[in-house]
Amino acid sequence: MTLAACEVLEKAEVIIGYKTYLELIPDFLAGKEVISSEMMKEVERCRIALTAAESGKNVALVSGGDPGIYAMAGLVYELAKETACTCRIEIIPGLAAINSCAARLGAPLMHDFAAISLSDLLTPWEVIEKRLAAAAAADFVTAIYNPRSKRRTDQIVRAREIFLAHRLPSTPVGIVTAATRDNETIVVTSLEKMLTSEIGMQSTVIIGNSQTYTWNDLMITPRGYRGKYQL
Amino acid sequence: MTLAACEVLEKAEVIIGYKTYLELIPDFLAGKEVISSEMMKEVERCRIALTAAESGKNVALVSGGDPGIYAMAGLVYELAKETACTCRIEIIPGLAAINSCAARLGAPLMHDFAAISLSDLLTPWEVIEKRLAAAAAADFVTAIYNPRSKRRTDQIVRAREIFLAHRLPSTPVGIVTAATRDNETIVVTSLEKMLTSEIGMQSTVIIGNSQTYTWNDLMITPRGYRGKYQL
Repeated sequence: MTLAACEVLEKAEVIIGYKTYLELIPDFLAGKEVISSEMMKEVERCRIALTAAESGKNVALVSGGDPGIYAMAGLVYELAKETACTCRIEIIPGLAAINSCAARLGAPLMHDFAAISLSDLLTPWEVIEKRLAAAAAADFVTAIYNPRSKRRTDQIVRAREIFLAHRLPSTPVGIVTAATRDNETIVVTSLEKMLTSEIGMQSTVIIGNSQTYTWNDLMITPRGYRGKYQL
Repeated sequence: MTLAACEVLEKAEVIIGYKTYLELIPDFLAGKEVISSEMMKEVERCRIALTAAESGKNVALVSGGDPGIYAMAGLVYELAKETACTCRIEIIPGLAAINSCAARLGAPLMHDFAAISLSDLLTPWEVIEKRLAAAAAADFVTAIYNPRSKRRTDQIVRAREIFLAHRLPSTPVGIVTAATRDNETIVVTSLEKMLTSEIGMQSTVIIGNSQTYTWNDLMITPRGYRGKYQL
């Protein structure tokens, strides 16, 4: 959590968020109007936040990770546009899965990278597959969001196949589950072996580029291809 | 800056970093051994940090942005490996340009994205160009790091051409310069017009995907392609 986020929460009159996230910040809730809501009610949560803000209140809508990366910021703006909302909206950036998972895995994101969500709920699978192939062929380090859920189990299998068509089976792969939480697990494996490790709803998978190597169970992507700089 | 970073700085016995960054955290330096160094001496800075840590000291190596994204984490590990360093190394994630620039621009990173550096100092231009074409063709929102320097002025011109081969001239483009600093500037423009705005060494450029639109001088990328969710 950033100092800027703390400052915003301290000043807020109304704090709105998913229950699990609000439970992580009890000190900020005292004396405030607190609206906690359940998973999957994102649209409702945003609407309530905008209505309260429009009425002149200082409102903080709490999100996990970075609200600006695959998260709530877009929905807030989409609804604000739809309702012609005139309140001032500020996005406070935070640590997204790519930031926290990369830190846990060593230094995988030292070079160009792509982030791809395997969730095909709002995106046709053909678009996702095209992106996987593009990222694999152009040697991007690739962070895979939403790799698997109870319902979606094949997508990560297919993603691995696509990468194997362009990269060595020994390419390092990192799997971080529940990053920064008590039940966090970190696995550094390879494209070849990655499916033998547990990958779930709370996992982020990072596939190295052609230069990525492992050292002491960490993934390291060197900064360049030419070795121009002297260590 | 995160609470975790504050905690690490408070506990550190030695604080090492580029002068400009250390000047931003005067409160943490009091009573500490402080080693400030000039730009472009990154390798030396890492070596000093590792040597001090190896001697048993608690050392904080300060970096701007997120050390794990195009930054110092990789160099630290590369040198630690080379010198068979046995000290414990921890990367404290921070806000990278993608996090802070996205927040300033609205909500451009709500869907799959790529980050590409146009610096060809350590990477052959052909590799960079291949990545630009792959990201453009597969409809990634694309964050461009190091878009232009005094020496490198043509790369951003070529990058724009590549994107224009795959996206409409009206595609929203955001340019954030000196994010979160006093001299920060934010421009929301289009692929067609982007070169008429100032782009420099401290700029990050974010090119929207085919769905990105603008509202009130903000870039918004909707979360899906199918409109499956009800607003």
